[in-house]
Amino acid sequence: MKNYSIAKSRRLRSTPYTSRIEKQGVTAYTVYNHMLLPTAFGSIEDSCDHLKKDVQVWDVAAERQVEISGKDSAKLVQLMTCRDLSKSKIGRCYYCPIIDGNGNLVNDPVILKLADNRWWISIADSDVIFFAKGLATGHKYDVKIFEPNVNILAIQGPKSFDLMEKVFGKEIKKLKFFGFNYFNFNGVKHLIARSGWSKQGGFEVYVEDIKSGLELYDYFFETGKEFNIKAGCPNLIERIESGLLSYGNDFDNNDNPFECGFEKYVNLDSEIVFLGKERLKKIKQEGVKRKLMGVKIDIDKISLTKSLNIKDDKGNLIGELRSACYSPHFKRVIGIAMINEPYCKASATGKLEIDENSLTVNVCDLPFI
Amino acid sequence: MKNYSIAKSRRLRSTPYTSRIEKQGVTAYTVYNHMLLPTAFGSIEDSCDHLKKDVQVWDVAAERQVEISGKDSAKLVQLMTCRDLSKSKIGRCYYCPIIDGNGNLVNDPVILKLADNRWWISIADSDVIFFAKGLATGHKYDVKIFEPNVNILAIQGPKSFDLMEKVFGKEIKKLKFFGFNYFNFNGVKHLIARSGWSKQGGFEVYVEDIKSGLELYDYFFETGKEFNIKAGCPNLIERIESGLLSYGNDFDNNDNPFECGFEKYVNLDSEIVFLGKERLKKIKQEGVKRKLMGVKIDIDKISLTKSLNIKDDKGNLIGELRSACYSPHFKRVIGIAMINEPYCKASATGKLEIDENSLTVNVCDLPFI
Repeated sequence: MKNYSIAKSRRLRSTPYTSRIEKQGVTAYTVYNHMLLPTAFGSIEDSCDHLKKDVQVWDVAAERQVEISGKDSAKLVQLMTCRDLSKSKIGRCYYCPIIDGNGNLVNDPVILKLADNRWWISIADSDVIFFAKGLATGHKYDVKIFEPNVNILAIQGPKSFDLMEKVFGKEIKKLKFFGFNYFNFNGVKHLIARSGWSKQGGFEVYVEDIKSGLELYDYFFETGKEFNIKAGCPNLIERIESGLLSYGNDFDNNDNPFECGFEKYVNLDSEIVFLGKERLKKIKQEGVKRKLMGVKIDIDKISLTKSLNIKDDKGNLIGELRSACYSPHFKRVIGIAMINEPYCKASATGKLEIDENSLTVNVCDLPFI
Repeated sequence: MKNYSIAKSRRLRSTPYTSRIEKQGVTAYTVYNHMLLPTAFGSIEDSCDHLKKDVQVWDVAAERQVEISGKDSAKLVQLMTCRDLSKSKIGRCYYCPIIDGNGNLVNDPVILKLADNRWWISIADSDVIFFAKGLATGHKYDVKIFEPNVNILAIQGPKSFDLMEKVFGKEIKKLKFFGFNYFNFNGVKHLIARSGWSKQGGFEVYVEDIKSGLELYDYFFETGKEFNIKAGCPNLIERIESGLLSYGNDFDNNDNPFECGFEKYVNLDSEIVFLGKERLKKIKQEGVKRKLMGVKIDIDKISLTKSLNIKDDKGNLIGELRSACYSPHFKRVIGIAMINEPYCKASATGKLEIDENSLTVNVCDLPFI
């Protein structure tokens, strides 16, 4: 697999932490919300091992925020998601599929309720800001919509709890999963949520004060030596093993939430008004014809750069592999695939062609672990 | 300047031509509309020379289309742009700033009028599709909005005219600048426009039939040997010399069209209804406080990965360098900068710090050539 350089420019925005992670040995980037997102510091297998044992600091500034405030902000936020936010609470994060008028997915952000009339939509890789602006204009909503200069640092891994306690005091350990609150570092308040794009536990610091954020970044590494702290990034292996889905990779604007296993975030029976509601009712009634599933393949490496077709014995298309990696835990390649009926069940098998080899694909449930 | 790899995945979509350009020596990519866009085949200086003399084929599939059709399609397309399209003609391309309710830029696409009720918005790097969907839903417009599977091949350079004549016949030379029509290749009709993101002349083939498009790709290289044809891509040097602006690099959603020199595409006096019209009237009346200008700097290399501040002698901020390259033609670095009043005039100078050197910046008009 040949490596290609990323051509940097202002359009692929750097983050406040870019110069730091480049000193710390970042080797590869992806682009996410028009911003650089690190994907590797050398071996992603070593990094996965480390993440599962110790603690990492991640530059995930590319998880941009869309701030929606004003009189009609709650109405607009609700209009965009099929999840019922009518009982949502200030200080909580909500994983919310964003849906268009066709019932298809636009994004799968975490939404933070900052106040009754102030929300942050912490987005995956698509321009939710323009969807929100279009809707607000069309509906003549009284809202303000902009991208605040928030640059998230994620602290992930089992030792993140002790590290965070050492830096912010023991109150931070009381934060519940997907709760957030404000914590002091050298006189500056930072919004910190117990969240992050791994299943190893951890926190996300929504840095608004860049100067303080950079001091915090450096302080984590000073004070975290005893926890074997390292710079890291969202890890392909860990996220697939954990079944954390990625917009653009595992699903996109051609897929609906039922196909992606988001049933529990689709509140069709409530009184709330959201886009695509009638369409989703119809889809639910008719049942979906395909579903995101796990797959296991008996090979020891893969480098997936686009979808690969999965076929049955007769060569008929039965699905599409969308993400994959070698998992040291399972000692084989695992992946996430959109599988058609009647193959979307845990005992199904299919075939995949890679480099002229025909490989057996075993369908399984998500998450793997 | 260290090189970093691009981490490929399904989310950074490959194009139908990716495997071909990788055999032809592409060395670097950027990401544009969630898709791989080649930026270099080795030296961009050599490539710039070649582009100015001969002919290149470019994989610019990343210039994605947003198709808007249906009864209210003309109304929606007009709502999004400040350019008066009321007299627009089928078979013509229109460069159209897309504007939000604040009067700021969302994108600067070329819009193709395919029929009275069918349009392609050939977009720069932002998700215009979600802006359009939001507006259509809010206004209850009767439209269909989707991303068709169109993968543009650009044929650029002075010899593109003879090459295209050889492939499509002499009728294609009658195509006027920004006109388009359908031309036959081996029994398949292709939409071809006289357009492209260089000032060296050329065409864009809007490939809808991938199989035919790949045959065409290969045929260009077979038949183009006499024209010294090479694989290429939008060239940083050529586009800056020519003053071709880039959304995300030179301007973005924080800038308005008057700041970017788009006055002639802002039709405030017509009866048409578009977003941000009142706001733009106010901005025009008050006058802008900054403007995109050219700059020249007496150094022989630069690698710009983010904005750099330009200051006056006293250290006050007077502007921001947003794109730059070494120009072999001017034998110095040239760039595009957002310059504040009263410095946005061709005789102004400023200072820029690079690697602890203080460099003189000479402001000039755009385009350079």
